Amino acid sequence: MPQKPEIPLPEAEQRRVGYAIVGIGELSSEELIPAARTSEHAYVAALVTSDPEKGKAFARAYDLTEQDVYSYDRFEDLRDREDVEAVYIVLPNSLHREYVERAARMGKHVLCEKPLSVNAQDAQAMVEACRAADVLLMTAYRCQYTPQHWAARDAVQGGRLGAVKLIDSIHGQVQDDPAAWRLRADLAGGGPLVDVGIYCLNTIRFVVGQEPEWVFATLHQPEGDPRFQEVEESMSFLLGFPGGVVANCLTSYGVQKTATLRVLGEGGTVLMDPAFTYEGLKLTISDQQGDFQPKLSEEDQFGLEMDHFARCIRQGQQPWTPGEEGVQDHRIMDALYQSARSGQVVPLEKVAGQDAFRGEKPQVPGQS
Amino acid sequence: MPQKPEIPLPEAEQRRVGYAIVGIGELSSEELIPAARTSEHAYVAALVTSDPEKGKAFARAYDLTEQDVYSYDRFEDLRDREDVEAVYIVLPNSLHREYVERAARMGKHVLCEKPLSVNAQDAQAMVEACRAADVLLMTAYRCQYTPQHWAARDAVQGGRLGAVKLIDSIHGQVQDDPAAWRLRADLAGGGPLVDVGIYCLNTIRFVVGQEPEWVFATLHQPEGDPRFQEVEESMSFLLGFPGGVVANCLTSYGVQKTATLRVLGEGGTVLMDPAFTYEGLKLTISDQQGDFQPKLSEEDQFGLEMDHFARCIRQGQQPWTPGEEGVQDHRIMDALYQSARSGQVVPLEKVAGQDAFRGEKPQVPGQS
Amino acid sequence: MPQKPEIPLPEAEQRRVGYAIVGIGELSSEELIPAARTSEHAYVAALVTSDPEKGKAFARAYDLTEQDVYSYDRFEDLRDREDVEAVYIVLPNSLHREYVERAARMGKHVLCEKPLSVNAQDAQAMVEACRAADVLLMTAYRCQYTPQHWAARDAVQGGRLGAVKLIDSIHGQVQDDPAAWRLRADLAGGGPLVDVGIYCLNTIRFVVGQEPEWVFATLHQPEGDPRFQEVEESMSFLLGFPGGVVANCLTSYGVQKTATLRVLGEGGTVLMDPAFTYEGLKLTISDQQGDFQPKLSEEDQFGLEMDHFARCIRQGQQPWTPGEEGVQDHRIMDALYQSARSGQVVPLEKVAGQDAFRGEKPQVPGQS
Amino acid sequence: MPQKPEIPLPEAEQRRVGYAIVGIGELSSEELIPAARTSEHAYVAALVTSDPEKGKAFARAYDLTEQDVYSYDRFEDLRDREDVEAVYIVLPNSLHREYVERAARMGKHVLCEKPLSVNAQDAQAMVEACRAADVLLMTAYRCQYTPQHWAARDAVQGGRLGAVKLIDSIHGQVQDDPAAWRLRADLAGGGPLVDVGIYCLNTIRFVVGQEPEWVFATLHQPEGDPRFQEVEESMSFLLGFPGGVVANCLTSYGVQKTATLRVLGEGGTVLMDPAFTYEGLKLTISDQQGDFQPKLSEEDQFGLEMDHFARCIRQGQQPWTPGEEGVQDHRIMDALYQSARSGQVVPLEKVAGQDAFRGEKPQVPGQS
Repeated sequence: MPQKPEIPLPEAEQRRVGYAIVGIGELSSEELIPAARTSEHAYVAALVTSDPEKGKAFARAYDLTEQDVYSYDRFEDLRDREDVEAVYIVLPNSLHREYVERAARMGKHVLCEKPLSVNAQDAQAMVEACRAADVLLMTAYRCQYTPQHWAARDAVQGGRLGAVKLIDSIHGQVQDDPAAWRLRADLAGGGPLVDVGIYCLNTIRFVVGQEPEWVFATLHQPEGDPRFQEVEESMSFLLGFPGGVVANCLTSYGVQKTATLRVLGEGGTVLMDPAFTYEGLKLTISDQQGDFQPKLSEEDQFGLEMDHFARCIRQGQQPWTPGEEGVQDHRIMDALYQSARSGQVVPLEKVAGQDAFRGEKPQVPGQS
Repeated sequence: MPQKPEIPLPEAEQRRVGYAIVGIGELSSEELIPAARTSEHAYVAALVTSDPEKGKAFARAYDLTEQDVYSYDRFEDLRDREDVEAVYIVLPNSLHREYVERAARMGKHVLCEKPLSVNAQDAQAMVEACRAADVLLMTAYRCQYTPQHWAARDAVQGGRLGAVKLIDSIHGQVQDDPAAWRLRADLAGGGPLVDVGIYCLNTIRFVVGQEPEWVFATLHQPEGDPRFQEVEESMSFLLGFPGGVVANCLTSYGVQKTATLRVLGEGGTVLMDPAFTYEGLKLTISDQQGDFQPKLSEEDQFGLEMDHFARCIRQGQQPWTPGEEGVQDHRIMDALYQSARSGQVVPLEKVAGQDAFRGEKPQVPGQS
Repeated sequence: MPQKPEIPLPEAEQRRVGYAIVGIGELSSEELIPAARTSEHAYVAALVTSDPEKGKAFARAYDLTEQDVYSYDRFEDLRDREDVEAVYIVLPNSLHREYVERAARMGKHVLCEKPLSVNAQDAQAMVEACRAADVLLMTAYRCQYTPQHWAARDAVQGGRLGAVKLIDSIHGQVQDDPAAWRLRADLAGGGPLVDVGIYCLNTIRFVVGQEPEWVFATLHQPEGDPRFQEVEESMSFLLGFPGGVVANCLTSYGVQKTATLRVLGEGGTVLMDPAFTYEGLKLTISDQQGDFQPKLSEEDQFGLEMDHFARCIRQGQQPWTPGEEGVQDHRIMDALYQSARSGQVVPLEKVAGQDAFRGEKPQVPGQS
Repeated sequence: MPQKPEIPLPEAEQRRVGYAIVGIGELSSEELIPAARTSEHAYVAALVTSDPEKGKAFARAYDLTEQDVYSYDRFEDLRDREDVEAVYIVLPNSLHREYVERAARMGKHVLCEKPLSVNAQDAQAMVEACRAADVLLMTAYRCQYTPQHWAARDAVQGGRLGAVKLIDSIHGQVQDDPAAWRLRADLAGGGPLVDVGIYCLNTIRFVVGQEPEWVFATLHQPEGDPRFQEVEESMSFLLGFPGGVVANCLTSYGVQKTATLRVLGEGGTVLMDPAFTYEGLKLTISDQQGDFQPKLSEEDQFGLEMDHFARCIRQGQQPWTPGEEGVQDHRIMDALYQSARSGQVVPLEKVAGQDAFRGEKPQVPGQS
């Protein structure tokens, strides 16, 4: 008689929160659906897709029936699926508002991919729609849920670096398909800023816990490149935080994958490199004693956020990164585009307090 | 209407090779079964376990029915499952022989976890049983299938390092459960050598493509430690290769996870650190020009080996790491224990040629 | 009879160029004077200091006589020292102009520490004074003479990265002595920008070989910190290069030592980290093949620049980093301070061509 | 009036200990003599060389007169040089004994390069000669004086790793001059073992503070290579320490520069890589919390040992690495060659206690 079981079995599905995944692109198929498999509190209960064959294949592969696959025009049929308590919107940005609002009207809680929308106004409308429908809305900012990013935040906010003086962050990658919806201004709402640069912006805000007071940006849109007819190829931008801390950020669709975050303080430095990848996050905290790479568990980041939202649903709590968190990034990105157009510094409304737009602190593995 | 599908769907299951996973311990549940999900040519068709509840839970979680779950006394019922073409033996080492032979008698091809058995004699019997039954037998040496290990091998055998002079390899980890079957001599056939030290041995043989001519070993079995009543805690050993190349190896159940391989040549060095982990393999090739970390895809190592064996089954070819490869490691490990007991160098039978015990070269991602 | 000599002896001193070191602060005593010892073409022939005891101690320690030590009021006595062909000005920035002009009037060639002066106007006057006196003037930009920086430049300009898109550079360190002359606006001409940020600026210009067309800067001068009554603590700045490439730079006297340079191209990346230290420069060139750290010799950077200038003197050639190179950095730094004051983008005069302000290419170890 | 002096001046020479450097090969000219310049307690007072022109050139370059240069047949003239209190023997190994004994007879203290001699018997005779002459004898083991090696030792002996289980160390480099005295058995007393492998041996003994109880070695001497007619090209060896800890070591003259040390404990690991270089020593201490690279000052290792011996001379104390420490390494190396010849494990006399052959603990920068 062979070995004993050594790992805990997953929680019974009936107690977990069932999600409908809306949109089966690369992110859904390679990250979200597999992540849900390992989730403690969430599972995939339904799929929404425009491609019935693809839907069926995924259903077969992931333990669903053909009845769990919905087309977009049957989206509202999910209303009657009691096992579907939440929908996860993984559509082009310009469709986020419509589907979030339709989901809210059905009484479903909504986890929405970042960016929340295509501008602050639409994003704010989504928050209001969910509030009116009394459902929870969460923006899927995976980097606010990992042990690595929390350890970075703790080092910064716990004073280990002394006073923070400067921040530097880069997120860029090559986007080489001229037909990608991410290069269409109306579908995406912007270029690399709203897709990858948003990680610099959002993670810096998370790590310092404060809000910028002004921004400056300059962008580059090379003439003649068919990819960048509507959106920028690259953007360099500055975020001015209270007390004089300035964050320098770079984002681009024209550079090899780079994802870094560095916080420089008078007594030490936090470096994440890579900082925003799905796997292999590496954190170094340097101070007067030396350089330290804490041993932190490698977690499925999508699993962490689906779990957090599931817990919030069960407990009736505002998620750590609610819709409001997504709105604030849109306000800042709107200001960045305005700055890039005008060549001027653009001031932002001052926001006092720590974590002004955040909800219930998540359970982070390894954090007490 | 949202985005188009961008990733290829998995091959239809009916054309893939169905495996029965025999034993659902940590390795099966955390690595093999998830790996099969992403496999191109293989899928899990059945499970064999002594724990029916656990089996049902896994069946439910992985798209199988209760009918796909077998107890050990119903093992032979798999004979009639035409969709089960292969079995993957993931049992304590001492049970490998019995289950490989039972599988062979049913006409099923067998992929068997390393070490193949508990000594060379039993391992050889398994090879013969499979040959007699006309089924394929493969030893599950995952490190012989990764892009990283093949790039290391190519650097060594392609002459980039010049003549190889010395090799150094470490594989150790903490085993802190005194009740683990891996600490029972009769179940495991040895201590850390047969479990983790075998990676040093097997990977070095793979990288140089040659067979050692002599060995020397010394082991440590601390008195009074309840874990090491039957097997060694640590072993240091030397492998003497043709032409005077000596490999120094260290293995232990008493040290923090360490997994390195270094090949030192007159013109350069290959370093893998970590060298044997499931993820994050890191290869550096150093020569007169500098240090180089080639960009290689991170693959699911278990998926790679299950795919390879599936292809061999479809094409009627001997796998790259057949039973014979596993037998040879047992011959060497038998000699290592003999050396440790006697304090003497133990000569091995000379084996001429490259890759003397290997079969069909695998398709390795990124290799042409 | 023991071993044979294996290393070449230094060139006879009479053929080497004798320098008078003007100012014996930490840089002179710890770097320049020891560097001169190992120089092939240069040696220290005289010292100028306000502290006679210190001068005597250094003379004794470095093979000079008491007659080789001069006070500042005896500076012009160097005129008659035929063996002193060059002076190396290592004084507070505000004194550079006076001593360069006095040296020029004596017919001595001048190597001047960076920044060349305290603003573009003074720097330009120094260039003209040296031209009028027919002596060479070189700005001591050590990072334009190392194998590591030339390899970075070659990777960028040789097309290995494809088109360059973005640049990011940080240079900061703690300045904790409120009495340091570097914190006095009249003596230093600025804060960390002119002392350490100038490395970002100058090295980026060197690596791309082009001149920025506009700048934007924001600075922070914390109230109540006695160190930053006159100069900035930190500055974030952007340099806009032809073709849309933007460089983000950060400099500070309030952060732990950080010195990085990253050039991001569509096909690869160059990273230097550390990028501006006296020792241990580390270069990684990443492209589609992987990451590469070329093996480059570690040279004494001050020896390299003293050697280059000595060769230029012998051969009557304009040095690679002449006074004009230093003037251009002052023009840009003047614009950066103007931008920080006004909050506006400041355009710069366009400069066509590669290496517009540079002279004779230096001999760099390992470069052909 | 420019800046104030900021660094302490060197101690007056009359109070420092004057050394005669015996042998001006590469080590003397590139390391020892420059190191003496920066030493606090030592200085070079005389040179002994067979090449008068070379001696004169060095004298001129290093602030000595022609009267400070001695030929070997005038070695005894140093007796009357009261300012020469110590001699530093930097000759081929086979000459160590003669010159140490001649120095001792003149009443000079002796710092002798490693290995102390060519075998244990000669080495022991040197110890006795110095004892009889009442002069101090120190073996120049620079790695026992650095902050990095002491931090490694503290981590190991302070329990941070838990019980140590295994040790692994490599030191190799290419020796490509067939005419080098280091390849002559009569001059060197052995091959890479006595030259570079001795660092593995000596540093491991230092880090654990204990003495091996047995050794095993195997060596390779390729036929037909003109370099290895008399000495080994490579050696692999094991050192068996009390309590079952085994150290695996590799050394070679046929591999690219490699210098590592890894100590594996049940709770953590110490890694030095590089471990034995003159510069750039890098220490990582890993435990359950993560990986830590302590910030330690980079010191001139030769300066540290010359300073330590100078202090011992002033204070009449036995140095930390006296002749006895060098004798013990010879005993072990003699046993290693015996093992390699016989193919057998060779037992060593048991030595109880910590640091059995060491003297006064050195002052190490950063150690309290």
